[in-house]
Amino acid sequence: MLFHVRMDVRLPHGMPQDQAAELKRVERARAEELQRAGTWRHLWRIAGQYSNVSVFDVASTDELHTVLSTLPLFPFMEIAVTPLLRHPSSIHSDDR
Amino acid sequence: MLFHVRMDVRLPHGMPQDQAAELKRVERARAEELQRAGTWRHLWRIAGQYSNVSVFDVASTDELHTVLSTLPLFPFMEIAVTPLLRHPSSIHSDDR
Amino acid sequence: MLFHVRMDVRLPHGMPQDQAAELKRVERARAEELQRAGTWRHLWRIAGQYSNVSVFDVASTDELHTVLSTLPLFPFMEIAVTPLLRHPSSIHSDDR
Amino acid sequence: MLFHVRMDVRLPHGMPQDQAAELKRVERARAEELQRAGTWRHLWRIAGQYSNVSVFDVASTDELHTVLSTLPLFPFMEIAVTPLLRHPSSIHSDDR
Amino acid sequence: MLFHVRMDVRLPHGMPQDQAAELKRVERARAEELQRAGTWRHLWRIAGQYSNVSVFDVASTDELHTVLSTLPLFPFMEIAVTPLLRHPSSIHSDDR
Amino acid sequence: MLFHVRMDVRLPHGMPQDQAAELKRVERARAEELQRAGTWRHLWRIAGQYSNVSVFDVASTDELHTVLSTLPLFPFMEIAVTPLLRHPSSIHSDDR
Amino acid sequence: MLFHVRMDVRLPHGMPQDQAAELKRVERARAEELQRAGTWRHLWRIAGQYSNVSVFDVASTDELHTVLSTLPLFPFMEIAVTPLLRHPSSIHSDDR
Amino acid sequence: MLFHVRMDVRLPHGMPQDQAAELKRVERARAEELQRAGTWRHLWRIAGQYSNVSVFDVASTDELHTVLSTLPLFPFMEIAVTPLLRHPSSIHSDDR
Amino acid sequence: MLFHVRMDVRLPHGMPQDQAAELKRVERARAEELQRAGTWRHLWRIAGQYSNVSVFDVASTDELHTVLSTLPLFPFMEIAVTPLLRHPSSIHSDDR
Amino acid sequence: MLFHVRMDVRLPHGMPQDQAAELKRVERARAEELQRAGTWRHLWRIAGQYSNVSVFDVASTDELHTVLSTLPLFPFMEIAVTPLLRHPSSIHSDDR
Repeated sequence: MLFHVRMDVRLPHGMPQDQAAELKRVERARAEELQRAGTWRHLWRIAGQYSNVSVFDVASTDELHTVLSTLPLFPFMEIAVTPLLRHPSSIHSDDR
Repeated sequence: MLFHVRMDVRLPHGMPQDQAAELKRVERARAEELQRAGTWRHLWRIAGQYSNVSVFDVASTDELHTVLSTLPLFPFMEIAVTPLLRHPSSIHSDDR
Repeated sequence: MLFHVRMDVRLPHGMPQDQAAELKRVERARAEELQRAGTWRHLWRIAGQYSNVSVFDVASTDELHTVLSTLPLFPFMEIAVTPLLRHPSSIHSDDR
Repeated sequence: MLFHVRMDVRLPHGMPQDQAAELKRVERARAEELQRAGTWRHLWRIAGQYSNVSVFDVASTDELHTVLSTLPLFPFMEIAVTPLLRHPSSIHSDDR
Repeated sequence: MLFHVRMDVRLPHGMPQDQAAELKRVERARAEELQRAGTWRHLWRIAGQYSNVSVFDVASTDELHTVLSTLPLFPFMEIAVTPLLRHPSSIHSDDR
Repeated sequence: MLFHVRMDVRLPHGMPQDQAAELKRVERARAEELQRAGTWRHLWRIAGQYSNVSVFDVASTDELHTVLSTLPLFPFMEIAVTPLLRHPSSIHSDDR
Repeated sequence: MLFHVRMDVRLPHGMPQDQAAELKRVERARAEELQRAGTWRHLWRIAGQYSNVSVFDVASTDELHTVLSTLPLFPFMEIAVTPLLRHPSSIHSDDR
Repeated sequence: MLFHVRMDVRLPHGMPQDQAAELKRVERARAEELQRAGTWRHLWRIAGQYSNVSVFDVASTDELHTVLSTLPLFPFMEIAVTPLLRHPSSIHSDDR
Repeated sequence: MLFHVRMDVRLPHGMPQDQAAELKRVERARAEELQRAGTWRHLWRIAGQYSNVSVFDVASTDELHTVLSTLPLFPFMEIAVTPLLRHPSSIHSDDR
Repeated sequence: MLFHVRMDVRLPHGMPQDQAAELKRVERARAEELQRAGTWRHLWRIAGQYSNVSVFDVASTDELHTVLSTLPLFPFMEIAVTPLLRHPSSIHSDDR
C-alpha cells in the first residue's frame, strides 16, 4: 500500500556541526536500509529545498508510522502524508 | 529531468455526461501514450480525491509545459509543479 | 486500517429540490450499508456545518478510494483524508 | 456531548530527555484515567505525526476546557476543537 | 452552554430581490424568536460586512446544530463555531 | 462603541513560573477593573485554548488601543480586533 | 475616528456593460459626496488591481457600516476594515 | 509616487529594556525627520497592534527601499508594500 | 523603475472559443507593442500554468496601472505586483 | 533552462555582526561569480524586504539545486522555485 510523504528538514541553527553530521549519517544509513527492504520505494530531493518527496510501500498505517517516527531526523522534520493507490490510467504493472 | 506534478480535476457540475466521458477517454489515451514514451514516469491516484500525483521525465521546462498544457483536461485542472532531482541517499540506480 | 475522513457537502444553489432529496436518500442508504458492513466505523455531524467527521476501517487505500469515490454525494463534497493508527495510550481494545 | 479534538505536540528541542519522558509518562497516565472514566472516548495517533485525533464526551464546555487545559502536555500542544453531534445517518446506537 | 458563532452571508448575485427580501424577513423573525427564547444570547453586526458575530446559549451541540441548520439563510452562510465558557477573570455573574 | 477582540496568549516556555504567575495576577486585576468600569463588556474563555473572546465598549479607537496596549500580557498576546455595531435584528435594548 | 478600508471590486463577468457603467457612475458620485463631507478622508487606487485603499473619518462604527453598506458597489466588493488611531510619532497635526 | 506600507514590529522577548527604548527613540526621531521631508506622508497606529499603516511619497523604488531598510527597527519588522496611485474618483487635489 | 508582475489567467469555462481566441490575439499584439516600447521588459511563461511572470519598466505607479488595467485580458486575470530595484550584488549594468 | 527563484533571508537576531558581515561578503562574491558564468541570469532586490527575485539559467534541476544549496546564506533563506519557459508572446530573442 502506497503513501506519498513529503519531509521538510529544519535543523536548529544552533545545532553543533558534529551532531548534525552524525544525524545525517545515521539518517542516510536508515534510508538505504529501508530502500533495500522495499519499504522506502522512491526518494527524490526537491530542488532548492532541504526537503524530499518519497513514496513508501507498507502493509499498514501502523508500519508507516513506525517507519517515519523512528527516522533519526524525525524530531526535526515537518512531514505530510497522502495516501495513494494505483491510478486506473497507469500502464506500469510495477507502479508502486 | 524530473518534475513532481499534482493535478486536481474540477469538472463543472453542469458539464454534460457525454462530454465528461469523452474528455476522460482522450485524457486516458494521452496518459497512456505519454507513459509508453517514458515522459509520464509515474502516475498515482490520491485516495478520496479526483486528483493524481505524477512524476514527469522531460528534457526541458518547455517540454513539460507543452505536455501539461495540451492534456485534454488541462482547462479543468489545478496543477502544481515541483522540480525534483536524484536524492543523494537514493540507492535505486533507476529512481526516475 | 483506519482513516479519518472529513466531508464538506456543497450542493449547488440551483440544484432542484427533488434531485437534492433523492441524492440525500441514496447517500443515506449507502452510508447505512457501509456502516453495517463495518467499513464506515464512525459517523458524526459537525455542529453548524453541512459536514461530517468519519472513521473508515478498510483493508487498503484502494478500498478507501472505491468507497469514497462511489458515494452518491462525492461530486459535491470536499474530502480530507488522514491516516490513523492505534494510539499507544489507548486502553480501548476495540478503538477502531 | 461530543467534541472532536486534534492535538499536535511540539516539545522544544532543548527540553531535557528526562523531563520529556516524565511529561509523557504522566500524560499517558492521565489519558488512561480519562478513558476509563468515559471522558476521552476515542484516541488515535495520526500516521507520521506527533499528533492525535480524539473524541471527548463531556457534560459541558467547562468540563472540556478543564480536562484539556490540565493535561500535562497542554503547554506544548496546539489544540483544535470541533463540536460534534449524532449524525442522522448513523446506525450505531452507541456512536459516541 | 455558550458557543460563539460567526455567520457570513453570501446571497448569489442572481437571486431575485423578492426572494432575498422574503428570506431576510423570515430570518429576522426567527432571530427575534430565538432571542426571546434566550437561545440567541447576543447578536452584533460586523462593520462593513454582511456578517454577524453571535453568542448562543444551548443545552447541547444537538440543539446548536438544530438551531443553526434551520435558519432560513443557512444555505447561504459560511458559519464558524467556537465553544466558549465562563472566563475565570469575568466579574459579570450573568456573562452568558 | 463596540469592538470584538480575540486574544491568544503565548507565554515563552522559558518564562519563570513566578513571573508568569505575577503577570496573570496583574492581568486579572486589570481585567476586573476594566469590567467594573464598563469598558471590558464581555469576557469568555475559548474551550481548549489559552485564549479569550471579548467585547469592549469604548469611546474611540484611541481608547481601545490604550486599553489593549497597556494590558500586562500585551507583549505576549496575538490580538485580533473587529469593529461591531448593533444588529438590526437584535431585540436586546442593552446588547452592548 | 479613523478606519482603514480596503475594497476589492469583483463584478460578475456576465454583468451587462450598461449596468456596470451605471454602477460605477453612481459609485463615483457617492464617493465624491462622501469626500466633500469629510467622511471618505483618503482614497487611493492599488496599482494593477480593481481595488482601493481608503481612510474613513466617522463618529462611530454605526456610521462606518451605514456608509460602506450603502455604497452602490457594496454587493460586489470584498471589504476589509482596520481601526486606526493617531500614531505617537506622527508630526502632522491633521493626520486624519 | 505613493506606496502603502504596513509595518508589524516584533521585538524579541529577551531584548533588554534599555536597548528597546533606545531603538524606539531613534526610530521616532527618524520617522519625524522623514515626515518633515515629505517622504513619510502618512503614519497611523493600528488599534490593538504594535503596527502601523503608512503612506510614503518617493521618487523611486530605490528611494523607498533605502528609506525602509535603514529604519532602526527594520531588522525587527515584517513589512508589506503596496504600490498606490491617485484614484480617478478622488477629489482631493493633494491626496498624496 | 521596475515592477515584478505575476498574471494568472482565468477564462470562464463558458466563454465562446471565438471570443477567447480574439482576446488572446489582441492581448498578444498589445504585449508585443509594450515590449517594443521597452515597458514590458521581461515576459516568461510559468511551466504547467496559464500564467506569466513579467518585469515592467515604468516611470510611475500611474503608468504601471494604466498599462496593466488596459490589457485585454485584465478582467480575467489575477495580478500580483511587487516593486523591485537594482540589487547591490548585481553585476549586469543593464539588469532592468 | 530558466527557473524563477525568490529568496527571503532570515538571519537570527543573535548572530554576531562579524559573522553576518562575512556571510554577506562571501554570498556577494558567489553571486557575482554565478552572474559572470551566466547561471544567475537576473537578480533584483524586492523593495522593503531582505529578499531577492532571481532568474537562473541552468542545464538541469541537479545544477539548480547544487547552485542554490551551496549559497553561503542557504541555511538562512526561505527559497521558492518556479520553473519558467519562453513565453509565446515574447519578442526578445534573448529573454532568458
